[in-house]
Amino acid sequence: MTAHDTPVVAQLRAALGERVDTSSTALEGARADKSGQISPGAPLAVVHAESVADVQTTLRIATTTSTPVVTRGAGTGLAGGANAGPGEIVLSTLRMNRILEIRADDLLAVVEPGIINDDLATALAAQGLWWAPDPASRQISTVGGNIATGAGGLLCAKYGVVRDAVLGVDLVLADGRLVHLGHRSVKGVTGLDLTSLVIGSEGTLGVIVGATLKLRRAIPGTVCTLTATFPTVRAAAVASAAVTSAGIQPAIMELMDATSLAAVHRLLRLPEATPGAAQLTIQTDDPAASGEADQIAAVLRASGGSVTLTHDREEGERLLAVRRSMHAAMASLGNTLIEDVSVPRSALPAMFDEIARIETQHGLTIPTIAHAGDGNLHPNFIFDGDSVPDAIWRAADDLFRAAIRLGGTLTGEHGIGMLKSRWLAEELGQDQWELQRQIVRVFDPAGILNPGKVFVGASHA
Amino acid sequence: MTAHDTPVVAQLRAALGERVDTSSTALEGARADKSGQISPGAPLAVVHAESVADVQTTLRIATTTSTPVVTRGAGTGLAGGANAGPGEIVLSTLRMNRILEIRADDLLAVVEPGIINDDLATALAAQGLWWAPDPASRQISTVGGNIATGAGGLLCAKYGVVRDAVLGVDLVLADGRLVHLGHRSVKGVTGLDLTSLVIGSEGTLGVIVGATLKLRRAIPGTVCTLTATFPTVRAAAVASAAVTSAGIQPAIMELMDATSLAAVHRLLRLPEATPGAAQLTIQTDDPAASGEADQIAAVLRASGGSVTLTHDREEGERLLAVRRSMHAAMASLGNTLIEDVSVPRSALPAMFDEIARIETQHGLTIPTIAHAGDGNLHPNFIFDGDSVPDAIWRAADDLFRAAIRLGGTLTGEHGIGMLKSRWLAEELGQDQWELQRQIVRVFDPAGILNPGKVFVGASHA
Repeated sequence: MTAHDTPVVAQLRAALGERVDTSSTALEGARADKSGQISPGAPLAVVHAESVADVQTTLRIATTTSTPVVTRGAGTGLAGGANAGPGEIVLSTLRMNRILEIRADDLLAVVEPGIINDDLATALAAQGLWWAPDPASRQISTVGGNIATGAGGLLCAKYGVVRDAVLGVDLVLADGRLVHLGHRSVKGVTGLDLTSLVIGSEGTLGVIVGATLKLRRAIPGTVCTLTATFPTVRAAAVASAAVTSAGIQPAIMELMDATSLAAVHRLLRLPEATPGAAQLTIQTDDPAASGEADQIAAVLRASGGSVTLTHDREEGERLLAVRRSMHAAMASLGNTLIEDVSVPRSALPAMFDEIARIETQHGLTIPTIAHAGDGNLHPNFIFDGDSVPDAIWRAADDLFRAAIRLGGTLTGEHGIGMLKSRWLAEELGQDQWELQRQIVRVFDPAGILNPGKVFVGASHA
Repeated sequence: MTAHDTPVVAQLRAALGERVDTSSTALEGARADKSGQISPGAPLAVVHAESVADVQTTLRIATTTSTPVVTRGAGTGLAGGANAGPGEIVLSTLRMNRILEIRADDLLAVVEPGIINDDLATALAAQGLWWAPDPASRQISTVGGNIATGAGGLLCAKYGVVRDAVLGVDLVLADGRLVHLGHRSVKGVTGLDLTSLVIGSEGTLGVIVGATLKLRRAIPGTVCTLTATFPTVRAAAVASAAVTSAGIQPAIMELMDATSLAAVHRLLRLPEATPGAAQLTIQTDDPAASGEADQIAAVLRASGGSVTLTHDREEGERLLAVRRSMHAAMASLGNTLIEDVSVPRSALPAMFDEIARIETQHGLTIPTIAHAGDGNLHPNFIFDGDSVPDAIWRAADDLFRAAIRLGGTLTGEHGIGMLKSRWLAEELGQDQWELQRQIVRVFDPAGILNPGKVFVGASHA
């Protein structure tokens, strides 16, 4: 009996017909996200849900047959949270991609989960509106996935994270029941805030089938862009902290260390970067953009930076393109484990010191970029082969502990998924880990939702 | 045996000495908050906790003796959430009022729960910082209470609610264990967002013994204040929606209906208000204040308003004092049930239509103010005697259903407490209500935390 002849697939097909996909392309494609991790084998089937009812039907069948379900949007995650393996149903929400409502007067939109972040942005821009969350994957990731991972992005220090931009979520529970969480009003404290609980829950609490998003109006005014190079990454980190300390809030403040910068320059065939030099790329926006950019330029120069400033939007995008090419530059070097620690902003220089120490102690090069405006770092580990070597996990372990010591966290915006479940209890503490796992069991008593992710087995503690 | 001779009180006293208070002043004072509701009798004792250890000790004794615990800050709640009755221990966090840390560079503060919102504001202002949540009770309410109720205030449309301004919470569980929820970094998605779950949980999940608050820098620039009178409350509501629709975001936009305005004018001995006239009071702030105020004035005049505009901060405060005197004006009329429905901003005129209908159908006058900028209304029911008459509950019931029909919610910022538990399941739906109650049971398996509040018995549904 092949996988697609199993009774559960037969049940799914009887109920959902052609929306049940057992083609090898679909099954193989669902084994991996963008984390570089791949599941040990193909899942049973991919259900291309087209409606809330399809999701409910799938989950009812999954519950009655005790079959695990992995919910999947565009598969752009970086922690293996949407990777599906043998014996699992993949529930794809990619076809549920409609915008159901845009209300400029109430600054809200109601959407299905499968809509691509950037497609929503285009539709909203036509009405002078904007959903702030802007993960680097915005052109390829879904809003449902952004919510499920609690995604961040480049603009978070000024404009917030996904948690700040969702009013309500429609959730199908493991047994197929539909609940409407949250509200459409700006304020609302009726009962527990289950909307926030679902944000970042990575498919463990239910399937997000709709969301009420909190919008902003498009920001008027110009955009100014600065780049500044510094002799060392520490100097760049200190300069970024000086910008924040000066009371200026840029829209974007990105830091690239020397290795990252050199790799991108090679990829883009730009003139070779000064050896050892690190770079800050900063954008200001809104009507105060120009004055803030001048203030920032002064702070950066006082911190020893060599500064370029442009008021031209296109020239600014060209400067920012260096930062945006980081992912491609890393991919050109080998397989990449992109880490995601986050620390209080003032600890950014200390965290770069820790990374330098880890490079030395573990004999590795760790190209690192940071959302310096909010203290979120992405150290990149480059490796050959299909899975992360133990030596790299040992260095990553060292990295996680350093971030936690500095008052930080394992993951700022990518999530726990499969990759970090073994460190989760260490950060949360055993009591909180157990509390969280029990909450998951309230939503999913049989444990069929994304098993093997986030809350797995016993902890280190 | 009197209440303070009971074994549990003896145990508390043996462990906590003079911090266990059984004076009749303390016991009587803990029977009521500011909701106008009073519990049927005095609680066992008030524990004046001075440390996390005191809270843990109290909860360990409560758990081993199965004694209910009502956590209480300043007792300024408006839903009866902190009212304590016979057989209950009151756990006061009012003496835990220290600021443990203020970090301007990381824009965060770590505080104990008992600090008064306004005292924190004073300390932060000295460093050019600001915690945005500004409930009307800010001069008398604690930060812990603000978090426990998920408080709102006047500035929410522009600067957010408590949920947007808390990074982490230290929570003592029912059995005395301490867990640290959340993080100190801007971003963090490690596990479920239990911080948000605790915000607004009204003492049902644990005792908040510390909080890491997300700060803002003090807003530079001037403050402009406008008042505008309109012939009807509906016209004022339409005008406020027109301001929002015009894409302008005032810091404060408050609406007073004719009855409210007349009552305040009488209280403050101001010239009599024009019969039937309703008023908007609007403040703009930050460097754009002046231009925005001019834009708003134009919108209000185009909407038929008679507008006064001042750029003088003191004159502005004098205008805003009319709005701030609402609570005192209502208190001068009799006992007051202050309701708290919230609707999408565009539904504000329709909600005022519903209130007018309810006034007619139920033969009542319902003076109403609204945070028009965010769609949160406070209809006031005036009554004589110690408890809310059934006729008023019938009108309130009508009010709640109307708000829900308009896409709104039972409570925007006051919480469920004792007063609204019977409507909770109607808004949440029976499935979600049950899910929420099970989550509470994960935190508090024995049900000793604030029993009889929020999740009570069976529902209407």
